[in-house]
Amino acid sequence: MDNFNRFIDYTLLRSDASFEDIEKLCLDAIKYDFKCVVVNPFYVEFAKCLLKGTSVGVCCVIGFPLGANKSQVKVFETELAVNDGVDEVDMVLNIGALKSGMFDLVEKEICDVVQAAKDKPVKVIIETALLTYDEKIKVSKIVDESGANFIKTSTGFQKGATSKDIELIKNNISITTNIKASGGISSFKDALSFIYSGATRIGTSSAIKLMNEFKKQNK
Amino acid sequence: MDNFNRFIDYTLLRSDASFEDIEKLCLDAIKYDFKCVVVNPFYVEFAKCLLKGTSVGVCCVIGFPLGANKSQVKVFETELAVNDGVDEVDMVLNIGALKSGMFDLVEKEICDVVQAAKDKPVKVIIETALLTYDEKIKVSKIVDESGANFIKTSTGFQKGATSKDIELIKNNISITTNIKASGGISSFKDALSFIYSGATRIGTSSAIKLMNEFKKQNK
Repeated sequence: MDNFNRFIDYTLLRSDASFEDIEKLCLDAIKYDFKCVVVNPFYVEFAKCLLKGTSVGVCCVIGFPLGANKSQVKVFETELAVNDGVDEVDMVLNIGALKSGMFDLVEKEICDVVQAAKDKPVKVIIETALLTYDEKIKVSKIVDESGANFIKTSTGFQKGATSKDIELIKNNISITTNIKASGGISSFKDALSFIYSGATRIGTSSAIKLMNEFKKQNK
Repeated sequence: MDNFNRFIDYTLLRSDASFEDIEKLCLDAIKYDFKCVVVNPFYVEFAKCLLKGTSVGVCCVIGFPLGANKSQVKVFETELAVNDGVDEVDMVLNIGALKSGMFDLVEKEICDVVQAAKDKPVKVIIETALLTYDEKIKVSKIVDESGANFIKTSTGFQKGATSKDIELIKNNISITTNIKASGGISSFKDALSFIYSGATRIGTSSAIKLMNEFKKQNK
């Protein structure tokens, strides 16, 4: 694997991240040629401006990290992000609605965000740490049928991805839906095991550490 | 103090809270006659329905917990909450903008949310744990001049309220602005010390434990 960098969404979602922090994130992302930077919606326009003419995309989170917003708010936040030039969006599932058995609402919300995102890929964060085995299967099938492009495991505010969960998701989606592993991924070894389990994208705030470990191993 | 219950905003903001959990929150809030329940925007309409005809209000969080949304999204989320019958709103400050020195943007956003909330009280969550001493003073003055009714210390996703911070805020706001202490408040003793320091509202998910301790002390 010589393009490990292109698996990485380099993420900075701290609430106290400043314009200076976002600038550093983007410059590092250009240096390593990561797939995307992932920022909060407030910073999409700024990041897009910095990354213009590079192969690094701008991804932003929607309804993050709780997902307990009204659907209209997630849709509106997506529309504004598209308007600001976003390349991909990572939305959080309405986990409470899922727990309440409101599967139609959960699915309709995802479809609405996918529509608002126009041609931009949508990843649905399902927060595996809070779901039962059956809920993981159910939601994998819902996302698979919704038109979203990715299932993303975690927000980072709960326990993160596991290989076991990635395999379970993989077994319950079609070949056209992808998996993004995320949540506290802080070593190349872990990232690699998630890729072997079926993830095609890695979300991490430790991307530079991962790249250093990757390079050391490939010396 | 025989009306300690009326100081309390009983809070449930977990992303996996179901309709059943919110129902239990509301029934307990009625039983203890708390000031408000605090829920995510998705549950405002439901909570309002359950609490109709009681003296317990519905409060919801806006741009929670990161505050790094676009202002338009916070405004829209507030408008929808008002439409759903919300009684108070707790918005999160744009902390990154504050850190970037964009004080006008920070203030305008608060003013816009205050306007969208119409006559409903607005509390501004400033997330003290992430701010420097000077930033705490600066933001206290900004909120004080914005037309918001409360400064709220914390989201609960960082370290919570301290008496020292409450006193600092108190010294930098006018008498018409109130303080809500929040973030991991899990004992009556702590709540009381925050009230002595100047808080007039306590946000907590441990409200029933606090009430039991309060009653024990007043036996």
